[in-house]
Amino acid sequence: MTTKTFNFLQRVKNLRNEMSKKNIFVSLVWDPDNQYYLSGFRAISYTRPILLFVYEDKLEYIIPALEELHAKEKSLADIHHVYYEQNNYIGKQVTYHHHFQEIIQSWPKNVKVGLEKSIVPASVYDDLLKIGAEVVSIDKDIINLRAIKDENEMKWLEEAGWLSDVAITESLKNVKAGISELEFDAIGDYKLLNVAAEKYPNTIVGYENWTCSGIERSVMPHLYSGTRKFQNGDVVIHSRQVWVNGYRAENERTFFIGTPTNEQRYLFDLAIEAQRVGIEMIKPGVLAKDVDIASFEVFAKAGYGDYVNHRIGHGLGLSEHEEPYLRFDNDLILQEGMVYTIEPGVYVPGIGGFRHSDTVILTKNGCKTITNYPRLADDLIFS
Amino acid sequence: MTTKTFNFLQRVKNLRNEMSKKNIFVSLVWDPDNQYYLSGFRAISYTRPILLFVYEDKLEYIIPALEELHAKEKSLADIHHVYYEQNNYIGKQVTYHHHFQEIIQSWPKNVKVGLEKSIVPASVYDDLLKIGAEVVSIDKDIINLRAIKDENEMKWLEEAGWLSDVAITESLKNVKAGISELEFDAIGDYKLLNVAAEKYPNTIVGYENWTCSGIERSVMPHLYSGTRKFQNGDVVIHSRQVWVNGYRAENERTFFIGTPTNEQRYLFDLAIEAQRVGIEMIKPGVLAKDVDIASFEVFAKAGYGDYVNHRIGHGLGLSEHEEPYLRFDNDLILQEGMVYTIEPGVYVPGIGGFRHSDTVILTKNGCKTITNYPRLADDLIFS
Repeated sequence: MTTKTFNFLQRVKNLRNEMSKKNIFVSLVWDPDNQYYLSGFRAISYTRPILLFVYEDKLEYIIPALEELHAKEKSLADIHHVYYEQNNYIGKQVTYHHHFQEIIQSWPKNVKVGLEKSIVPASVYDDLLKIGAEVVSIDKDIINLRAIKDENEMKWLEEAGWLSDVAITESLKNVKAGISELEFDAIGDYKLLNVAAEKYPNTIVGYENWTCSGIERSVMPHLYSGTRKFQNGDVVIHSRQVWVNGYRAENERTFFIGTPTNEQRYLFDLAIEAQRVGIEMIKPGVLAKDVDIASFEVFAKAGYGDYVNHRIGHGLGLSEHEEPYLRFDNDLILQEGMVYTIEPGVYVPGIGGFRHSDTVILTKNGCKTITNYPRLADDLIFS
Repeated sequence: MTTKTFNFLQRVKNLRNEMSKKNIFVSLVWDPDNQYYLSGFRAISYTRPILLFVYEDKLEYIIPALEELHAKEKSLADIHHVYYEQNNYIGKQVTYHHHFQEIIQSWPKNVKVGLEKSIVPASVYDDLLKIGAEVVSIDKDIINLRAIKDENEMKWLEEAGWLSDVAITESLKNVKAGISELEFDAIGDYKLLNVAAEKYPNTIVGYENWTCSGIERSVMPHLYSGTRKFQNGDVVIHSRQVWVNGYRAENERTFFIGTPTNEQRYLFDLAIEAQRVGIEMIKPGVLAKDVDIASFEVFAKAGYGDYVNHRIGHGLGLSEHEEPYLRFDNDLILQEGMVYTIEPGVYVPGIGGFRHSDTVILTKNGCKTITNYPRLADDLIFS
């Protein structure tokens, strides 16, 4: 399997180094993306908890029975504690909690435990407090590890970027007044899945789209696609993420159905200029906040600062959004191997919303853009 | 908007009744589906927290700036506290935490706070413990409210069920060896979106599929669809959820590419029989566990109990899975208006996995099946 190309053991070693600096005895990892990052196993998990324990010398999972074969095929853990749902297991381990209590009761007194405190539910935290554990946050440690991508991760990110261009090209080849937001998305989806099936056998591929069409909807940056049909005079913001082997690229384009007004075209060009400034500026050694501020200034100088309501970009990799962010208050020094979206946007009620998003990988001296659909207005006016 | 057909005010009133019984001063609602259920507002929220506070006499939200217009259009809350990401807001409310601290510091001493303890992150819980709040769980209260659907919810569930049949029909009309799991899914997706665009204008529609094809993959109940292509001799389990206005139906079918072996056909029929027993049994007044046990017994009596690794079904509505479950250890008395999947499965390594899932709404004397694609083997063998 292609996932074996990732160096999971090195990642676990890196986390153990951080744990050792803080004298952490064991870390409980709850987030599915973090679990995948460390162990190679990624379940579809809604309501059956999956817990990964990282000790100095072993990895242990608590998993539901329906994931037993899957986990044992994919995960690098040493031990898999399974809980069951069959009637003939009554009185045995039928919830995660049975295993969890057994495990935490076996820990030494006053144990120091690492936890993703911004993710793990209060009820689990309560159980740790009850045994007298000293609980410390490992959120930032895992974020920092995941922020710097290795060569294999970058390879899949680039493939995802390429596929996202395939999809957007196909959707826009077929765009017209009268098709719905959801159909517009699905045209690109089908094409990318068709191409992916030929190019990457036995691989997990996925996608996520939102298309906000029309003047009223385009000024709201995050909306689920619906059955609204495109009409002449629409400004449309199409957002797309594509992932291959878990790694995501983001690709967003604003476009017009019919000829834009002068003010719409002006704002469209302003958003492109803000994006150009961001892409030109982002590189190792620069502060995260300076990229956001420079891009924001393009809008502010034009008198539209009050119509900007989000940062210029977020990290990207296994999750839809990843820390650390390109925000005006983030003093982080950017490094080679980080991955960001560059997506300044401006949203003016009555006129429309305007935002492209592209994904960049930080290189030694600058950045590489991995999404490349044309950006200029002349390429994005349809009838 | 169609969402206004739901009686949000009654739902809030019901929650306040439960709060009042426990002397809860305020509830903090974190889960996006719970927020939508109570307020009518559902954001796409990854990394910007959204918090809903339910007091006896008011509803308050903390929201990020990019959701301001959206929330004010959809939500019934009295107050929206907005946090900003623009550089010109520095020193003002630039994270949810600013508003959160201001709000919780304004509460009376020793305040009693309701929390979804199985969902809210440990870090938020920590902040409540620090102000000396007495934190009590409201998980079960909200689960119980959501479990009984009203007429409008049932209407959208039925529409979702109907659309899921449209999609599965189209996918299976086009099934053949050589197409990938993902393409198979997408064929049904496109059709359902096309139909939905005609039938439900300006409505949010969505879907989720996983298709586990082949003997090795079909024995793992939960896998993301991939680019593996169907081959002659495959057993395939296709899982599909469709939602309309947020309400979900689940529809799953096991099918064969080419003629099944006798043992495969036997297990297929066994799973159908287990499902038939479950659908026949489920009705108001019956215990949740008895439905699960009766269905499991079909497999157990045939000697396949050890190859069953999940419960017979879960609740359904706004979330992929909803409590309470049809589990062997759940003494819940079922009631009219509850919605369940009935999906017993058996997974035998080397032979294949076998599971249909249908969604039922409990009626006064029995249940109504809202997903109706044919279930028998003769309808599910393709070449």
